[in-house]
Amino acid sequence: MNQTRRNFLKTAGAAGVAALAGSAGPTAAKTLDRTAKAGARSGPQTLPKKMTFCTLRKGSEYSLGLKTDRGILDVKKAAQALRKNVPLTIDEVLQGGDTLGLAALVEQAIASGNLKSAFIEEAKAEFGPCVTNPEKIIMLGYNYKKHVIEVKQQMPTSPVLFNKYNNALNCHNGTIELPEVAKKFDYEVELVMVMGKVARNVSEADALSYVFGYCVGNDFSARDLQFKTTQLMLGKTSDGFGPIGPYLVTADQIPDPQNLNLDCRVNGEVRQSSNTNDMIFSCANIISYVSHIWTLKPGDIFFTGTPSGVINGMPPEKQVWLKAGDKVACSIEKLGELRFGLANPKQAKAT
Amino acid sequence: MNQTRRNFLKTAGAAGVAALAGSAGPTAAKTLDRTAKAGARSGPQTLPKKMTFCTLRKGSEYSLGLKTDRGILDVKKAAQALRKNVPLTIDEVLQGGDTLGLAALVEQAIASGNLKSAFIEEAKAEFGPCVTNPEKIIMLGYNYKKHVIEVKQQMPTSPVLFNKYNNALNCHNGTIELPEVAKKFDYEVELVMVMGKVARNVSEADALSYVFGYCVGNDFSARDLQFKTTQLMLGKTSDGFGPIGPYLVTADQIPDPQNLNLDCRVNGEVRQSSNTNDMIFSCANIISYVSHIWTLKPGDIFFTGTPSGVINGMPPEKQVWLKAGDKVACSIEKLGELRFGLANPKQAKAT
Repeated sequence: MNQTRRNFLKTAGAAGVAALAGSAGPTAAKTLDRTAKAGARSGPQTLPKKMTFCTLRKGSEYSLGLKTDRGILDVKKAAQALRKNVPLTIDEVLQGGDTLGLAALVEQAIASGNLKSAFIEEAKAEFGPCVTNPEKIIMLGYNYKKHVIEVKQQMPTSPVLFNKYNNALNCHNGTIELPEVAKKFDYEVELVMVMGKVARNVSEADALSYVFGYCVGNDFSARDLQFKTTQLMLGKTSDGFGPIGPYLVTADQIPDPQNLNLDCRVNGEVRQSSNTNDMIFSCANIISYVSHIWTLKPGDIFFTGTPSGVINGMPPEKQVWLKAGDKVACSIEKLGELRFGLANPKQAKAT
Repeated sequence: MNQTRRNFLKTAGAAGVAALAGSAGPTAAKTLDRTAKAGARSGPQTLPKKMTFCTLRKGSEYSLGLKTDRGILDVKKAAQALRKNVPLTIDEVLQGGDTLGLAALVEQAIASGNLKSAFIEEAKAEFGPCVTNPEKIIMLGYNYKKHVIEVKQQMPTSPVLFNKYNNALNCHNGTIELPEVAKKFDYEVELVMVMGKVARNVSEADALSYVFGYCVGNDFSARDLQFKTTQLMLGKTSDGFGPIGPYLVTADQIPDPQNLNLDCRVNGEVRQSSNTNDMIFSCANIISYVSHIWTLKPGDIFFTGTPSGVINGMPPEKQVWLKAGDKVACSIEKLGELRFGLANPKQAKAT
């Protein structure tokens, strides 16, 4: 009880690394969650480069992974073995964690003869969402020219924005349980941007320098709910309706986000195949526009709209909606492939 | 380093209470934030009764307050003095903190002769938002009959839902900085419900038993942004556009949320004066409906729609939009009065 705050933090930090080997029960979250802050999320001083992050999942716990030539480095395992104090989750990275320390950790882990078990083969890894705790998931509707035409909408004159809540976050190799109240399930491959710095009133010319990285996403949709009222959100944010990943690739590796091929396949059949150069509002334009209306923060996610080829754009007689058992795969150039499956709900407690 | 996890948590908990007297720097959040969990937010086992919570603010730190006959109890101060391990933020309460311990703390603090300084006069208290970290802020549009008529909309046949992000959270005696890109600012007093249990596929008959409590809110709006596209969100979630509070009143104290007078005044002039019995979709109906589409979690917030009297419902020649310097006050029977002011932005970095 006589410890100074600084000493307390040192102790907690060191013990925390040791303790992470055990499974963290709900008590852990309660006891540690004593840092409620107004206006947190200040972000890293310098955005990391040449890094490809992911979230690894063990049971209900998320931790940080880093893609390397040797496989995915389990950062927590390496940090424990090498006794390094580095960010252990993607949120710690996004909120200002020491990514130089992470780069050093990777080098040491590769150099060490005893750390083979800290590298996981991609095929054996269990992923979580590559961002786990954004303040905002901002969605663009009607942002590819050919898609606007296929769904017979007016060409928008300003970005059309709606949201998903964090309950929608889902992951590579994840499953979406289809809610019983809907029938018309549809895919939407999208380029996803993740913010790395606080952005307020930024110019279009500067906008991309605020991006932490990019990933593949799917704006999974229940069309019957989406069009039940004027507000799209109802059909967009059921549990798990926003898979992202597998990797969050730092922005320096994607110098031009407006020239990326992207596609979506259902049970192996190509349904969407386009390029981000068909976007109406560019990534830079979207960030600048929104930053004049509210503050963007590190970890905020933009889904930048879907290209043509969705079921909703087909003539009614050709619309075969997605169903339990279907497998969806989405790829974007330089970002990898996001796969997920569909299932009936496990516990549909009807009351 | 040889501590078991249980011992670590005990130590961290005790040291945490001691350490909270110091100011928590960004390092604190980083070091302690090592508990990223999938599907957290399980909520309290038993919902507390007869309690009136608030968030107290000191600089950028939020902590828990409890309204008593002696004034607002600063829970952290009392917990330190009495060496009690109790929830120290409203989020800890909503995520399952020991509210029986809190009730005992209040009794002991009142009984103690040495704890007068832990009670704060309401007029001298600095408030934060009465909920600080919801997973979802779910907004109802067009949910009062007379309001639907005044704004010349179709009477909705199902709830019209959109969102605010957490950047919109604001507090009693707070200030909204008006974004420069908009001009048509308007008030909307609303009854706000806060969820206390995980709710999935619940019946309308059971729905209210999932509510933790109620508070006053204002769905502050920039009408020019709101109607720029079909999606209302753009005009609804600029920084600070969602003041809530001052108090979060436990649900047992509001047996019938459909019979509460509510009003909104601007610079002392009554603009909205109605009763929640004019709602189209009741609180119970809204919860049941949404719980069939996605999972509701403890801390999730519903703004249940605004009654008639908004500037947007007036004839164009009578519309005088809110401006910097205006003072807004909103009252709801049994929940208290929420006041906030409007200001020009402090740092409009135009680039």
